[in-house]
Amino acid sequence: MDGFSFSTEVRVRFAETDAQGIAHHGAFVVWLEVARVEYLERHAGGYQAIRERGLEALTTEVHLRYHRAVYFDERLTVAARCVGMRGARFRYEYRIVRGDELIADGHTSHAIVDRETSRPTRVPGWLAEAVARAESAAA
Amino acid sequence: MDGFSFSTEVRVRFAETDAQGIAHHGAFVVWLEVARVEYLERHAGGYQAIRERGLEALTTEVHLRYHRAVYFDERLTVAARCVGMRGARFRYEYRIVRGDELIADGHTSHAIVDRETSRPTRVPGWLAEAVARAESAAA
Amino acid sequence: MDGFSFSTEVRVRFAETDAQGIAHHGAFVVWLEVARVEYLERHAGGYQAIRERGLEALTTEVHLRYHRAVYFDERLTVAARCVGMRGARFRYEYRIVRGDELIADGHTSHAIVDRETSRPTRVPGWLAEAVARAESAAA
Amino acid sequence: MDGFSFSTEVRVRFAETDAQGIAHHGAFVVWLEVARVEYLERHAGGYQAIRERGLEALTTEVHLRYHRAVYFDERLTVAARCVGMRGARFRYEYRIVRGDELIADGHTSHAIVDRETSRPTRVPGWLAEAVARAESAAA
Repeated sequence: MDGFSFSTEVRVRFAETDAQGIAHHGAFVVWLEVARVEYLERHAGGYQAIRERGLEALTTEVHLRYHRAVYFDERLTVAARCVGMRGARFRYEYRIVRGDELIADGHTSHAIVDRETSRPTRVPGWLAEAVARAESAAA
Repeated sequence: MDGFSFSTEVRVRFAETDAQGIAHHGAFVVWLEVARVEYLERHAGGYQAIRERGLEALTTEVHLRYHRAVYFDERLTVAARCVGMRGARFRYEYRIVRGDELIADGHTSHAIVDRETSRPTRVPGWLAEAVARAESAAA
Repeated sequence: MDGFSFSTEVRVRFAETDAQGIAHHGAFVVWLEVARVEYLERHAGGYQAIRERGLEALTTEVHLRYHRAVYFDERLTVAARCVGMRGARFRYEYRIVRGDELIADGHTSHAIVDRETSRPTRVPGWLAEAVARAESAAA
Repeated sequence: MDGFSFSTEVRVRFAETDAQGIAHHGAFVVWLEVARVEYLERHAGGYQAIRERGLEALTTEVHLRYHRAVYFDERLTVAARCVGMRGARFRYEYRIVRGDELIADGHTSHAIVDRETSRPTRVPGWLAEAVARAESAAA
């Protein structure tokens, strides 16, 4: 997708639908996380590489705008890019599409913390570099 | 809570925690919905009153900022107010606290649609009036 | 409820419904867990009392039979009893009702393990005694 | 997998983990559903083919035995077979493995109902035949 370094596919699970007959808006938050996990796997050795160093990436903000309802079993493309790394913080931006149609967009913000102390910790150099490489290749 | 017409309690379920040992950020989206449902029940005959008239309230936007991690079995207070009704649209604002401590805040936006046609439909008068009464009492 | 030492209430969340217009069958598994947590709180100092001793209670089996569909916002009573403690293992039995109507019943099996080693560990004496007291009072 | 006509892959999502650091036992119920949906897609035109005829497949029983804990981001194979179609009812049996290791097994029971009347309805001939073909090919 234009301007995005990465995308992955999700398929709406029946358990993710609600009594309005559509995917529940909370399911999208999980799909963004699925996209981040796969982004890190493709570009930076996986989220496990962060966790194995005693770090966690906390989510500090979620913003989603829903433009179209989606239905059971539909395939969606979740595009993600990682932007704005500074200190302990970084941010992902997303577009979710069904074919050509924009379904939702938004962003999440994150902070790296030390698992033992819960204190913010500068994004490790190897991770910042992997992300910079991925995003400059996409630009 | 100051400036809020309504609050309810949620208790962090074990199923809502994740491998970071905290409540998953997606669970908060569900808690906001629990608060909306109880808000409508207290002030406007319940969400069922909307659904029984062939209407649905779609969620068109979610914005959450997470300030503190929360843990299994903690009791949280979710305060909500309904603001900015105009045409088919309205918005809720939220503060989630643990005792005196701000845990998260945010807002959601919604649109009333006709269930059969999926077309936006003006917020029914009885609902707009019930919300206006509730919010002016809180002001 | 007859033969049960404990019951609690749950209310069907909108997020727990699915596109069949009913509560998703997976939500019931979470409600059983909510009941266990409250059972332990009432009778044995809470699940946290187990976790604080470096133990975890793993779920080793879930069996649920669904007799009636349930709908958004309905209030259900989940009755639970703890039976068959032996060594590291114990079992809960459940009945979920809506008023007088049986909605679902089932059981779950559990094993106490040491968090560090993941090895099965005899149910602590204080817990076995608290459960025995609770259940003999109900009999 | 031996004796199974079908298998699919799932990957443990972070949102599916819990504060024990493992996949929550409730997530397995969703994975069984994912397997059923893909089974029907491969063998019988998809679950949508059932829904489009005004029918629903209700879940009337879930039984799961958990043999090993599973962790974030692990890939699991869910094998499923459909057995015992009779009248409105049928049943799936499952084995979930991680490589060669048995993680969980179980079954679910289902009933076809008419969406409007909620009454049990004989499994349609085309579906019974598609399942019979799939299962006899696997035997």
